[in-house]
Amino acid sequence: MIKGDEYRERIAKLKPNVYMGGKVVDRFDPRMLGGINVMAGTYDFALDPEFEEVGVATSHLTGERINRFCHIHQSVEDLLNKQKMTRLYSQEVGGCTQRCMGIDGLSGISVVAYEADQKYGTNYNERFLEFMKRVQSEDLSLNCAQTDVKGNRPWRPHQQKDPDLYLHMVEKRSDGIVVHGAKAHNSCSSYVDEIVVIPTRFMTEEETDWAVAFAVPADWEGVTLINASYSPTGRKNLHCPYETVGIGHSITVFDNVFIPWERVFLCGETELAGKLALLFALYHRHSYTGCKAALSEIFTGATALAAEYNGIAKAQHVRHKLAEMVQIVDLIYAAGIAAAMNAVKTDSGTYVPDTNYCNAGRMFAGEAIYGEYEALAAIAGGLAATLPDEADFLNEKTGPYLEKYIMRHPDIPAEHQHRAFRLFQDMMSSAWGGHKLIDALHGGGSPVIEKVAIYRDADLEHSKNIAKKLGGIPFEGSTKKLSRKFLWL
Amino acid sequence: MIKGDEYRERIAKLKPNVYMGGKVVDRFDPRMLGGINVMAGTYDFALDPEFEEVGVATSHLTGERINRFCHIHQSVEDLLNKQKMTRLYSQEVGGCTQRCMGIDGLSGISVVAYEADQKYGTNYNERFLEFMKRVQSEDLSLNCAQTDVKGNRPWRPHQQKDPDLYLHMVEKRSDGIVVHGAKAHNSCSSYVDEIVVIPTRFMTEEETDWAVAFAVPADWEGVTLINASYSPTGRKNLHCPYETVGIGHSITVFDNVFIPWERVFLCGETELAGKLALLFALYHRHSYTGCKAALSEIFTGATALAAEYNGIAKAQHVRHKLAEMVQIVDLIYAAGIAAAMNAVKTDSGTYVPDTNYCNAGRMFAGEAIYGEYEALAAIAGGLAATLPDEADFLNEKTGPYLEKYIMRHPDIPAEHQHRAFRLFQDMMSSAWGGHKLIDALHGGGSPVIEKVAIYRDADLEHSKNIAKKLGGIPFEGSTKKLSRKFLWL
Amino acid sequence: MIKGDEYRERIAKLKPNVYMGGKVVDRFDPRMLGGINVMAGTYDFALDPEFEEVGVATSHLTGERINRFCHIHQSVEDLLNKQKMTRLYSQEVGGCTQRCMGIDGLSGISVVAYEADQKYGTNYNERFLEFMKRVQSEDLSLNCAQTDVKGNRPWRPHQQKDPDLYLHMVEKRSDGIVVHGAKAHNSCSSYVDEIVVIPTRFMTEEETDWAVAFAVPADWEGVTLINASYSPTGRKNLHCPYETVGIGHSITVFDNVFIPWERVFLCGETELAGKLALLFALYHRHSYTGCKAALSEIFTGATALAAEYNGIAKAQHVRHKLAEMVQIVDLIYAAGIAAAMNAVKTDSGTYVPDTNYCNAGRMFAGEAIYGEYEALAAIAGGLAATLPDEADFLNEKTGPYLEKYIMRHPDIPAEHQHRAFRLFQDMMSSAWGGHKLIDALHGGGSPVIEKVAIYRDADLEHSKNIAKKLGGIPFEGSTKKLSRKFLWL
Amino acid sequence: MIKGDEYRERIAKLKPNVYMGGKVVDRFDPRMLGGINVMAGTYDFALDPEFEEVGVATSHLTGERINRFCHIHQSVEDLLNKQKMTRLYSQEVGGCTQRCMGIDGLSGISVVAYEADQKYGTNYNERFLEFMKRVQSEDLSLNCAQTDVKGNRPWRPHQQKDPDLYLHMVEKRSDGIVVHGAKAHNSCSSYVDEIVVIPTRFMTEEETDWAVAFAVPADWEGVTLINASYSPTGRKNLHCPYETVGIGHSITVFDNVFIPWERVFLCGETELAGKLALLFALYHRHSYTGCKAALSEIFTGATALAAEYNGIAKAQHVRHKLAEMVQIVDLIYAAGIAAAMNAVKTDSGTYVPDTNYCNAGRMFAGEAIYGEYEALAAIAGGLAATLPDEADFLNEKTGPYLEKYIMRHPDIPAEHQHRAFRLFQDMMSSAWGGHKLIDALHGGGSPVIEKVAIYRDADLEHSKNIAKKLGGIPFEGSTKKLSRKFLWL
Repeated sequence: MIKGDEYRERIAKLKPNVYMGGKVVDRFDPRMLGGINVMAGTYDFALDPEFEEVGVATSHLTGERINRFCHIHQSVEDLLNKQKMTRLYSQEVGGCTQRCMGIDGLSGISVVAYEADQKYGTNYNERFLEFMKRVQSEDLSLNCAQTDVKGNRPWRPHQQKDPDLYLHMVEKRSDGIVVHGAKAHNSCSSYVDEIVVIPTRFMTEEETDWAVAFAVPADWEGVTLINASYSPTGRKNLHCPYETVGIGHSITVFDNVFIPWERVFLCGETELAGKLALLFALYHRHSYTGCKAALSEIFTGATALAAEYNGIAKAQHVRHKLAEMVQIVDLIYAAGIAAAMNAVKTDSGTYVPDTNYCNAGRMFAGEAIYGEYEALAAIAGGLAATLPDEADFLNEKTGPYLEKYIMRHPDIPAEHQHRAFRLFQDMMSSAWGGHKLIDALHGGGSPVIEKVAIYRDADLEHSKNIAKKLGGIPFEGSTKKLSRKFLWL
Repeated sequence: MIKGDEYRERIAKLKPNVYMGGKVVDRFDPRMLGGINVMAGTYDFALDPEFEEVGVATSHLTGERINRFCHIHQSVEDLLNKQKMTRLYSQEVGGCTQRCMGIDGLSGISVVAYEADQKYGTNYNERFLEFMKRVQSEDLSLNCAQTDVKGNRPWRPHQQKDPDLYLHMVEKRSDGIVVHGAKAHNSCSSYVDEIVVIPTRFMTEEETDWAVAFAVPADWEGVTLINASYSPTGRKNLHCPYETVGIGHSITVFDNVFIPWERVFLCGETELAGKLALLFALYHRHSYTGCKAALSEIFTGATALAAEYNGIAKAQHVRHKLAEMVQIVDLIYAAGIAAAMNAVKTDSGTYVPDTNYCNAGRMFAGEAIYGEYEALAAIAGGLAATLPDEADFLNEKTGPYLEKYIMRHPDIPAEHQHRAFRLFQDMMSSAWGGHKLIDALHGGGSPVIEKVAIYRDADLEHSKNIAKKLGGIPFEGSTKKLSRKFLWL
Repeated sequence: MIKGDEYRERIAKLKPNVYMGGKVVDRFDPRMLGGINVMAGTYDFALDPEFEEVGVATSHLTGERINRFCHIHQSVEDLLNKQKMTRLYSQEVGGCTQRCMGIDGLSGISVVAYEADQKYGTNYNERFLEFMKRVQSEDLSLNCAQTDVKGNRPWRPHQQKDPDLYLHMVEKRSDGIVVHGAKAHNSCSSYVDEIVVIPTRFMTEEETDWAVAFAVPADWEGVTLINASYSPTGRKNLHCPYETVGIGHSITVFDNVFIPWERVFLCGETELAGKLALLFALYHRHSYTGCKAALSEIFTGATALAAEYNGIAKAQHVRHKLAEMVQIVDLIYAAGIAAAMNAVKTDSGTYVPDTNYCNAGRMFAGEAIYGEYEALAAIAGGLAATLPDEADFLNEKTGPYLEKYIMRHPDIPAEHQHRAFRLFQDMMSSAWGGHKLIDALHGGGSPVIEKVAIYRDADLEHSKNIAKKLGGIPFEGSTKKLSRKFLWL
Repeated sequence: MIKGDEYRERIAKLKPNVYMGGKVVDRFDPRMLGGINVMAGTYDFALDPEFEEVGVATSHLTGERINRFCHIHQSVEDLLNKQKMTRLYSQEVGGCTQRCMGIDGLSGISVVAYEADQKYGTNYNERFLEFMKRVQSEDLSLNCAQTDVKGNRPWRPHQQKDPDLYLHMVEKRSDGIVVHGAKAHNSCSSYVDEIVVIPTRFMTEEETDWAVAFAVPADWEGVTLINASYSPTGRKNLHCPYETVGIGHSITVFDNVFIPWERVFLCGETELAGKLALLFALYHRHSYTGCKAALSEIFTGATALAAEYNGIAKAQHVRHKLAEMVQIVDLIYAAGIAAAMNAVKTDSGTYVPDTNYCNAGRMFAGEAIYGEYEALAAIAGGLAATLPDEADFLNEKTGPYLEKYIMRHPDIPAEHQHRAFRLFQDMMSSAWGGHKLIDALHGGGSPVIEKVAIYRDADLEHSKNIAKKLGGIPFEGSTKKLSRKFLWL
């Protein structure tokens, strides 16, 4: 387990392959610092005694104490602890902790690499476990590159006019494979040690070349990161934790990139490619039951603060709205608990959370986020959008005006009121806030995707049987049990 | 543990104090059989090997095997098992299992009786434990009479022009107390062995006479039950389980009823009266995370069946709607799991489920029910409302017409199609269905009540602190933990 | 213009072809009186001076004063008056006025009969105008039989195994045609003078036999009505207008029914069959902007009354809910006004309301109805479901108990409180109420059908062009206008 | 009627009293150009022959042809034309046209100035008409300053510790009055000719000093504008109309500002102060039924474009969503039509639109906006948030990558796809987009305010009477009419 600054030093040594605003940029470009700060936090939090219970795990490979972000779930308790860790850290950094993607991808690989070896006599799992040991001992930061750019959506990967629109293998060599393509919406890629690459969907028989999974260092030969970064607006005087965070998303281009065999975890097993795609999504949606619960609680807290400062905390519609927001927090988090409690142990030893609970929770969170923005905006009022620049509070003519006219209850200092509305502005009326709203909708899969997953995984025959039994229509099987889940595991 | 028929025999011996339709009626009046059938089911299910795991518990008082409906929760697992039992039984009887009310009331009493004794030197707990032993050994059916008729809502109990509008003690004697008043919406009262009476709300210092809790046999001197019963319409030929169920609700009138001391569990402890009111509601809402999950699944199954029979199961909007319905089932049930997992052990030894999770789940269920009716109606179509009487299917002229014109896919027999739409009609387009909709909204507390409870119990200061920390506003305490719950326990 | 009693006398003369509960029944069977009362009302209202402005029109065929339910729209004002009439009458009868179906069907025929003659040299319009003159002079009551039973939904009419699953012509003769099939959900058929039959959907070239429109007396040879009737529960003492209403829906079977040519208005013009189906739906949805506005206002009024009697009228959440209900009433009605204001005059002289506004309004109403039931149930409370039978209020023992315990504010007489909750029970917790909820969802077309219609009729290219213009993407045409409507008229 | 450039020249002559980012800025500061462009558009549109029908009116004061933004409504048609003009212009500028505020304020003054003179013998109306003539002949741009900073919300104006927290008169002189205070969220103030100031709420007897209405030039002595401006991000190559727009909002400070009598339109008439506040809100909400319909259509068009480019336009859930968006557009606009059709002519001759229809439409629009953002985000996908900077498309290494990987359907040029997603990014994932979302919620009054207004203005007694009549409960008056509106006019 290393410290945040040790992580920073390692990132500083990466070769420059990040582009932003039309130029190659240093990884410590001011626009990217926010993301690096958050990622560094995941190292320091694990060393914080208040977080030790959740932030540190024991490796099942080495018995060493490791950062939980490097741990493959070996029990229900691991799943519960990861969910709790994610929520607690997210409370500290105002949202996404950014480091779960990598471990969620690796958790998925741990299942399919084992299964491939059993089924096809490959040795992916051995390679994978070696890779995991290094991840744990070096405390690597990783992200996961899943979403292909996908070209024309109704066409399958092999039907696209340009085959590169889904990343694929273009050459198989004795020492490894060569891949070509790009991954979109690739969060944190510009400030992680390594990138874990997995398929984006089920693959058909024609698509063995697209069924690849591997890991590469973020500055590997042939990898180019075209990055878009977002952060809250910087402060002049009103410094605060929220101004230090940020995130970057890149289109990660793989231009004939060579991957040595020891870094390849699937190569042509089309059926398992789809399963891996689902497993990563599943783990990541379980992560969201932690971070989205935190994000919802942050909006709840901000809305409660806005109500207090505006002097309307006792209005019934405000109390009702806050109760609805608390309900959302609790239902999201409850879904994650239930998913962990109903987890399944796979042959590889890895625990997989229940699919319907994960999807139900993530979908609920995604559906709620626009309403949470609306609640904060409704109760904070227009000032969240029309607040003058901080510099106007410092100008000798306009500063006193603003200090005078921002006042609400005289017991609350003007600076606190200013700080609160500045926070609300950052959260909503900024490029950061606008971007986060879309991010919270789509990250880990949009509600419509979860609907598809829920429908696919639900045991509707069981539900129909209950109705048939009540109505006297013949059916097969027993209704005296709960719906069966995990139809595909 | 007795059988359903033994329960029926005991009910048959009760003295006639039930009124319906302007007359004293036999407890086995055909209109009341539905409720009796459901209640009897709770005895037989416990003897069914498929349900044994959830339906039977071990008494912490005697070590005997008992029906779980007579068991006070001694662990997290007890809470999980009760939730599961409730859901499984509800699947069998198409909704409410009717027997949870009594044990939910007794669970609440187990906490406050103990606490009263500790605080005030009373001996309620000893009486209560004696009572419990009899409940367990005789396998009694009980209900809980909580909701007072309440008169003018803005006035407190002692402010009503007529003091009887909340049930209260009118005389304290050496051998017991005399009470007067009425309890409304008192489900199942006309076919239980005993009625458990508890307060409906917090009581003030002026209201010691209203702070009473006790149990009486259902045919006790001075007790009158004015009953309204509902059942699905009976069938002529298309017999099915759904036609056998039903429920009764009474206004239970207590006209100067004497309660001997051994049956009195609170008498004047105003603070604990409110706590008992909350505890019963809490346990009962936890029960709802089981039965409402089942009810939602029944609507899901019925909607899936309607889609199949109508030949539209593959339409995207139908699949999306079904996924939303599955999501609701899972979120309701997840809330109950999370509530059990976060339960607190009280000094009495009784486990109490988490309040915010219970309220979040019950509120969510209550908010969903109208949409569930709408989904079934939307996908089943108008025939659920315009289906001719079963007799028209038996008439020699109209029968063939109806058999011919009800056909959808030729592979599905006309009778199955008829049975399905008859079920949908029973579920929605009947006095039973209309009544159940209101019942599902209000039973155990309406969503607006749960909003009040969630707001009251939420630790909004914690949430505000997270926002303050992010925005650089001073606050007290640590944000490095989850919201604290159970502020009132 | 005749009186309601004259209508009743005419109905009394119809031959017995109505079946209910397995038997042929008299048209004045007590179960059917509710519908007859409502229909009779549409005659008497027109003679009521308070309604004269809206209820009476001047025939464009004869210049006579006629009941507006016999009038084909000749102006925007006609459309506005019909919408207003529908709303005002619906206020009086607690919902559906039942007589708009017939005139809505005839309005559609007036357009396509004319168009067919222009296009194909037929003489439908002449026949139709003769028919209309009789409708007006005799003040006929009519309904419209549109919805076929439809068999397996994914198959078109000519693809069904049984060709009768959509009503079709089975023989063309010199003096007329013979039709066979059945129409479902055929409201009011058992108490109208004549039934207007039109196609249910677009027809293809293979489906000329299914493209028929005609009118027949309700007791015509070969026509059988299998009827399901609904009414609020009758009262013993608390008589009121609401107990007098009701409705019947039949499956109307046409078993080789001969239709003379003078009653045939389309026969084989497949393209116009679809247009007629759309036009009837359009007129009927415009009617719904009147009656559903009334129905929504009745629920609003009932909810406000419940709030007043429960003493919670000043609670903020109650006021907010009532405001939302008023908003719904106003948006539904506004959609109808806008549809009338944007009506188009067809070549036949008939005015057709705007399609998108009609569909937007009807869809909004259909989406709102479940929420309106929920609002009334939420604010009235459980007593709407658990209210004992009226007879229990008359029993000498239980009557005084119920009078005492139903009391809320002492200034409101017990009888008024009893009447209010009896009304709420009738509206929701009864076969009538359950059935009405489905009826209000599906009648005139369900929200999902209106979605389809809105998508079909919307000028999305225009909307895309606005976006393209803003973003600098080339497009054709001008954005300096409103969306074009009526793409299909 | 002048041209946009003439307006610009006049603005260029205003004295520098605008602060932004801590400095006095030129009114043509690049950050403010967006707002000026939009305002200039309102001049040029009126001269565009395609808009003449709606953009030009005839003055009832002089008979001259004037820009409709300078016209007081003299008929229902005026209201309909203004609504249509607002929608058409908004389509051109991507949202708010910015000039309606001023005329909406003046329309309100036209009613109360007349009424004050009738009631109190003042001569406000004469002054006002003189002012209007100048507005018309000089074609002035105006905004309206209504919202006070309001201090602690639960306290009334005269109860605030600092009396300036609501703008008020501090001195009455023979030649005019002196006012002190500030107006918040004062849109467009930094680029209008004059500012119209009106009260923000009802005033009590203690608050005559706060009951003032007047107009001042935007650069008047003592007036300071502290401005926050928003615009879409500028483009390098992909120039388009959307990059040219913008808006500014200021806190407008009045530091002992002298107002000569000829510019004062209310001074101490507390009752009329409240009425003016309501009237401005009412007119402005009617404006919103035009501009919000346009904004909703822009989101609809953008969503349809996103669906087309993503190749998912035929997916059922996309079509359903688009239909829902069209429904929203139509209901908003229908509400405005109905409000105009039910307008009332006041004694002053000014027409006032119906209050409940205006509020219903504006509330509906406000409730819909978050869902519209969500729909576009859901269907456009994550690229709207993660799109790299335009400069990265121009870089010689990354440009070809981005052109290759942005491709969807090969028939759509990469540039068009890039332009579309750049537009979506501007609309949502930018400071402009985040700010517009709050603006669309609160501008003209938030949904919660409209709820209050709807409840206040609704004739719920009438609705209750309908319910009472149906249930047989005595009531006063007749139910044979529509709800009465305009209870306060």
